[in-house]
Amino acid sequence: MALPTPDGYRMMDENELRHLLAGLPDIVARLGGDSGSWQVREVGDGNLNLVFIVEGNNGGICVKQALPYVRLVGESWPLDLNRAFFEYRASVIQAEHCHGLVPQILHYEPTLFLIVMELLSPHIIMRRGMIDAVIYPRFVEHITDYMARSLFFTSDLALPAAQRKAMITEFCPNTDLCKITEDLIFTHPYMVHELNRWTSPQLDGWAAAWRGDDQLKLAISRLKLDFLSRAEALLHGDLHTGSIMVTPDETRVIDPEFAFVGPMAFDIGKLLGNLVLNFFSHDGHETVSHERDAYRAWVVETIHGVWHGFAQKFLDLWTRHRTGDAYPRDLLPEGSAIFAQAQNAFIEQMWTDAVRYAGASMIRRTLGLAHNADLERIEDPDRRAACEKRVLELARDLVVNAGSYASVEQVTGRARAIRERDLG
Amino acid sequence: MALPTPDGYRMMDENELRHLLAGLPDIVARLGGDSGSWQVREVGDGNLNLVFIVEGNNGGICVKQALPYVRLVGESWPLDLNRAFFEYRASVIQAEHCHGLVPQILHYEPTLFLIVMELLSPHIIMRRGMIDAVIYPRFVEHITDYMARSLFFTSDLALPAAQRKAMITEFCPNTDLCKITEDLIFTHPYMVHELNRWTSPQLDGWAAAWRGDDQLKLAISRLKLDFLSRAEALLHGDLHTGSIMVTPDETRVIDPEFAFVGPMAFDIGKLLGNLVLNFFSHDGHETVSHERDAYRAWVVETIHGVWHGFAQKFLDLWTRHRTGDAYPRDLLPEGSAIFAQAQNAFIEQMWTDAVRYAGASMIRRTLGLAHNADLERIEDPDRRAACEKRVLELARDLVVNAGSYASVEQVTGRARAIRERDLG
Repeated sequence: MALPTPDGYRMMDENELRHLLAGLPDIVARLGGDSGSWQVREVGDGNLNLVFIVEGNNGGICVKQALPYVRLVGESWPLDLNRAFFEYRASVIQAEHCHGLVPQILHYEPTLFLIVMELLSPHIIMRRGMIDAVIYPRFVEHITDYMARSLFFTSDLALPAAQRKAMITEFCPNTDLCKITEDLIFTHPYMVHELNRWTSPQLDGWAAAWRGDDQLKLAISRLKLDFLSRAEALLHGDLHTGSIMVTPDETRVIDPEFAFVGPMAFDIGKLLGNLVLNFFSHDGHETVSHERDAYRAWVVETIHGVWHGFAQKFLDLWTRHRTGDAYPRDLLPEGSAIFAQAQNAFIEQMWTDAVRYAGASMIRRTLGLAHNADLERIEDPDRRAACEKRVLELARDLVVNAGSYASVEQVTGRARAIRERDLG
Repeated sequence: MALPTPDGYRMMDENELRHLLAGLPDIVARLGGDSGSWQVREVGDGNLNLVFIVEGNNGGICVKQALPYVRLVGESWPLDLNRAFFEYRASVIQAEHCHGLVPQILHYEPTLFLIVMELLSPHIIMRRGMIDAVIYPRFVEHITDYMARSLFFTSDLALPAAQRKAMITEFCPNTDLCKITEDLIFTHPYMVHELNRWTSPQLDGWAAAWRGDDQLKLAISRLKLDFLSRAEALLHGDLHTGSIMVTPDETRVIDPEFAFVGPMAFDIGKLLGNLVLNFFSHDGHETVSHERDAYRAWVVETIHGVWHGFAQKFLDLWTRHRTGDAYPRDLLPEGSAIFAQAQNAFIEQMWTDAVRYAGASMIRRTLGLAHNADLERIEDPDRRAACEKRVLELARDLVVNAGSYASVEQVTGRARAIRERDLG
């Protein structure tokens, strides 16, 4: 391997992994039978890591190993192996607060930067389901629990400052992964950059307009500074429908390797933006006009449910667990009008920030490096571009005029209006 | 010593210190002569540490040693010795950027939590000079250099994110000192607390009104959250006229033991608030009415100069050193209207935040634990209370209605109007 790696690190192949696991009694018990009988398959189709599924007589596990570079690109883009450690640590912290909503971590192997976790089956990546217009009736309930609890319990509202500072310290070194976000979301789509791509030539004019849009570049730069400097809570860092595995009854948030202590609204906005993007994508998948009207209605309802559910649960947690150093109860007692006012002002600010991050995440998926399958799966480039233009039109307004969206219903209302204007 | 301390730590006395310094060749050379001939005096009159002055034939040095408790209170209030390390590290970083504006560090002794630095002579603590109505004609020039350079060069505007995160990590553990600020500035003055004190009975009604003022408690709580979570630049952390030593020609900022990566406006607002407080104090020191009109005018001019000088220098540095990850030049090129707009919006936000912190720092010096000599030296409690009421009236408005102060001239204008209303 050309890239330098720490002593003892080596990329696992199926045999080496089998040997490693055979030395871990808890894993052996979970899999069952002789290690020679286990089925070991490398299944990683993500951008960054090796992923193995191992199955024995009793059950299965999932193994994720960090590579010292971006798998999608190769050794020319080195990437810190320690992201596996940050994923492991974030998973442990989130499991404390969000039991049953994240995969159970079974083992961490520091030398190999390798995580062993429960196998999620028959869960699928939610994005795949949503492209196929599958309804997940319990998603809102689960994801709002995850968001409210993972953010609240790692914020200054729940933790004393010294514990918060220790958490910031632990995750600060995850700079390589933060840099990906800083570049791909907050910078590249707004300039000429070799990593950008878009549906061409249909969106060439839009991409050029983006690079010349001063108010948009100012707004995105302000947002980038917030991402760099606001240490509000432990974020998942890449919360979208591709980081969520679902069945009709269960929801698991996976892959927190981008975890760091940052602005809470980033997680919220990223998820909302990806849901809005999915809303716009169905016009490219329909074989008959109006075929997916009911599904679009469910997506809209889901977007509303995610925000309102999150906000309500977050505020409820805040009312019940005032264990942090911020907003001291001695100044703002429970039940007082002023505490209610403090909560409302706090959540309104978070909403406006989330609107901005939602717009930013929609833009990067349309003009930046990494696109979403929701739109990429639309094979006809004209149909795809038509959807993407609607995504971009709304997204710009969310970033630049976030303050004019007082409610989540106004966001989806504007999305519907843009779509209906074009399609009748 | 009752409190546990690390191996090797011991409180220095004059003889032990002499022995320690005799083993440091650079120090011996600087002092000159035989160590037995040195004069060693403990002179600490601060709240926290031992401070020694050592003088030899050739010159002098200053030695500061952290005690494991708050000196002012005693062993009942333990305090992390590592504050000496943070002061040392902040001093080294600030010396890089603010050469000649901070004392030169000559040696750091980690086991003893002891800093050896140049002796500042004939400099005096600026607050003492200002109580005696001494004009410092070069203060604005010097302090604005210090503020602009120390804040800018440790911000996301100047440093790449990975270096910034490393700096955040280094200073995060300074939580004991941050907690003092969190409690004494942002919490205690707004509740019943045994550490609070004020001129009584004259201000009893004011202190009670403060504890019942919902809008004030909401505003101060929002500010506390910012202090806890906004990691914008390496702050001095306790920048006021008691942390500045001056002669008519020189200015040195001392005592950065409260250093951490926090909101930039905190340093700015704290200094401005202390200057405004000094403005109001002279009515308690005058032996004849109007005696200090000219000095008050100088204080007002200084307040204006501190803000305008800081803002101009900060923006100039930003224009010339765009080496950080925030506000990328690819999006906002030098000389463009949009870069100018970005700079203006940034500095306006910093101003509004500074107004809030200025008000907060005035309140804590009037109703909290630690008061300023500017007012404490007024012996007649009625005269003192009359000044303090004016301080509080303005301070509340700064915290609650910061947005209505569009300029520093509006702040000093309101200060003058309050004073003239009472005194004619």
